[in-house]
Amino acid sequence: MQILDAKDFKYERDVETGTEQQLTAVMSIINEVKTKGDAAVKSLTKQFDKVELNELRVSEAEIEAAYTKLAPELIEIIRDAKENITKYHEKQKQNSWFSTQENGTILGQKVTPLDRVGVYVPGGTAAYPSSVLMNVLPAQIAGVKEIVMCTPPGQDGIPAAILVAAKECGVTEIYRIGGAQAVAAMAYGTESIARVDKITGPGNIYVAIAKKMVFGVVDIDMIAGPSEILVACDEKATPAYAAADMLSQAEHDVLAAAYCVTTSRQQAEEIRQELAKQLLELDRNEIAKQSLEQQGKIIIVANREELLAVINDIAPEHLEMMVEEPFSYLGEIRHAGAIFLGPYSSEPVGDYFAGPNHVLPTSGTARFSSPLSVDDFIKKSSVIYYSKEALKANGRKIVSFANEEGLDAHGKAVAIRLEMEGL
Amino acid sequence: MQILDAKDFKYERDVETGTEQQLTAVMSIINEVKTKGDAAVKSLTKQFDKVELNELRVSEAEIEAAYTKLAPELIEIIRDAKENITKYHEKQKQNSWFSTQENGTILGQKVTPLDRVGVYVPGGTAAYPSSVLMNVLPAQIAGVKEIVMCTPPGQDGIPAAILVAAKECGVTEIYRIGGAQAVAAMAYGTESIARVDKITGPGNIYVAIAKKMVFGVVDIDMIAGPSEILVACDEKATPAYAAADMLSQAEHDVLAAAYCVTTSRQQAEEIRQELAKQLLELDRNEIAKQSLEQQGKIIIVANREELLAVINDIAPEHLEMMVEEPFSYLGEIRHAGAIFLGPYSSEPVGDYFAGPNHVLPTSGTARFSSPLSVDDFIKKSSVIYYSKEALKANGRKIVSFANEEGLDAHGKAVAIRLEMEGL
Repeated sequence: MQILDAKDFKYERDVETGTEQQLTAVMSIINEVKTKGDAAVKSLTKQFDKVELNELRVSEAEIEAAYTKLAPELIEIIRDAKENITKYHEKQKQNSWFSTQENGTILGQKVTPLDRVGVYVPGGTAAYPSSVLMNVLPAQIAGVKEIVMCTPPGQDGIPAAILVAAKECGVTEIYRIGGAQAVAAMAYGTESIARVDKITGPGNIYVAIAKKMVFGVVDIDMIAGPSEILVACDEKATPAYAAADMLSQAEHDVLAAAYCVTTSRQQAEEIRQELAKQLLELDRNEIAKQSLEQQGKIIIVANREELLAVINDIAPEHLEMMVEEPFSYLGEIRHAGAIFLGPYSSEPVGDYFAGPNHVLPTSGTARFSSPLSVDDFIKKSSVIYYSKEALKANGRKIVSFANEEGLDAHGKAVAIRLEMEGL
Repeated sequence: MQILDAKDFKYERDVETGTEQQLTAVMSIINEVKTKGDAAVKSLTKQFDKVELNELRVSEAEIEAAYTKLAPELIEIIRDAKENITKYHEKQKQNSWFSTQENGTILGQKVTPLDRVGVYVPGGTAAYPSSVLMNVLPAQIAGVKEIVMCTPPGQDGIPAAILVAAKECGVTEIYRIGGAQAVAAMAYGTESIARVDKITGPGNIYVAIAKKMVFGVVDIDMIAGPSEILVACDEKATPAYAAADMLSQAEHDVLAAAYCVTTSRQQAEEIRQELAKQLLELDRNEIAKQSLEQQGKIIIVANREELLAVINDIAPEHLEMMVEEPFSYLGEIRHAGAIFLGPYSSEPVGDYFAGPNHVLPTSGTARFSSPLSVDDFIKKSSVIYYSKEALKANGRKIVSFANEEGLDAHGKAVAIRLEMEGL
């Protein structure tokens, strides 16, 4: 684990865009699904997942059966988490609005939920029920009526916790397909899957490339890169907590990055020792160890200003402010996906339970993007009711503007009204 | 101009994605700019725009000079339009918010403007000052501090109206570069252009492909396709107005689509005659004529339900409700970029002047996307302050959830606090 001074740190983190070979492979999968529909989906599933599919759709009976396989306490925890996530996301709902003018003009903005969305849920070791909650609940709260879920069939079927989470959150259709073929099926539709308007959810590089390729045909959420955490400490922070939270990111993936930024060199050493000690107790210690060695860094800063500069430079997905008076930093933190304040706000609190979404912008994209939210499942329409009086007052200016742009039919559309109405 | 019954109408409108050749050309331009910076930008400008560039950046003196070339009335109209657009977009601003719980927990969402954005403004016959207003003002109102504009150098320089509009709206830097090379320069940065966080603005197919390719490195707005209008009429609508508004779209581009949907077959005939008559008077009548013949359609519907079904099927960029009681339809209109209500709300009113944005989702993408707005120039960060009491109450549930997902370091990050704090 490298300890270095802020002046020796340069943030470089590229967004993974896929090799030429991966791009070609995905393009061909998309074209196959687009042209051959269900048949292509089935043969690709056989090829990649080694599963022979009959029914693409998961039946109600299978979903009901999943409940019997899950510990009742876990079902209760899923319901508790759902309640917290629902409460938080309810506050993101936006109203349609309008404003009126005395001449009768009304201008406004209508908010409408999307009709139909698709959520991708990865399979294998990355089968996370929390991912179902975090992707589906914002759509459901936005008012989306049809919520489709696609997830790989798996050699042993779809994990029960995934099916239960989907049912609890109001998913309306579940299909046992994964990979780029699932993305293509949701974007273009097949005989048995109607096309959706937006696709969200994490996935491997093939899923990410496929989402980028169908972007425009449908909307997508951000392309997720590896997970990151930055734990910002002052002298008072508890090294054991900083280390534990860094490890909770590092265990995700060898590419996951755990950063610590601290004003104390002595503390940096203590955190390094804690990391070494706690690492030994982890199930996924090989992954976490590699991540720490290759991606992890402890950065020493001279003062608060330098601390904030490193934070805004990295624009971390998860930012923990393990400092005194953490709220006092909020105004100066410009870029972060989620900001965890104080010693008890360990990152896993946000991953599962507190309420905010765990789908966050990675790899520095917090510079321009936001956590997944209800906003992602609505769209807006401008509303314009121009009165006769407003047209009389402004019509000639609009005609001049149109003529300046060399678009005379635009001008004439207004002029014909001025003339015929005698304005 | 085709008149047909709703039952014979099937909406098909593909999003243009570019040929293999175009994709390869753009990929190579992006790589050149990424690796060679300013030198590549200059040589590509020489190649494509036939202009030898010394200074990329437009000087303050050139911007000042532009004011002397523009009619004072036009400057006034630009200022009036700016005022209306500003007033409307001010209402889109969102507040940061937080909520508190009795156990001390605070959850919230922080709203922060983007640091630096780039606006692309096309050159040539498509040099529209209104496009500057509509792209720049939402960014400026959102609080973006650095707003960069790129526009092709042009054989006769950049049009004065473009420079004046940019200055009026608070653009902070203007560069005379266009095409895919401008998009690449803004996304990756060069020696003289610092990289931006988001790129918006219309452009030709090369610009559109480049934006899609850099998406992820920076954010982009929607890829704009050809313009569309749908004029929805009942028996009382004035055929001359419907025709004039359809022509205002048709003159944009031979690919622009003007649809009329009406409950009256007789009126459909009258609109067709009006179109033929008004077409003769247009400067751009060749373009408008081709557009009407190839893309235009008048669709006859039996009743209000069918009318709404066609609207929601097409999901038009511009929708005009030239019907009695237009507001009564609002709840049932699910997909439209901008909705113009009543006989005086001619589409050009919204293009230039009323206040709402004219950057709207095209080609059916109103199913999932929104007009350009202040929302596009802010991002959100979740804020989580978990109290000791909340951790005590919920910590064990969080540990169980983490263990269910096989992420024990996540569980341990919470467990270590429960233990060390004696919770």
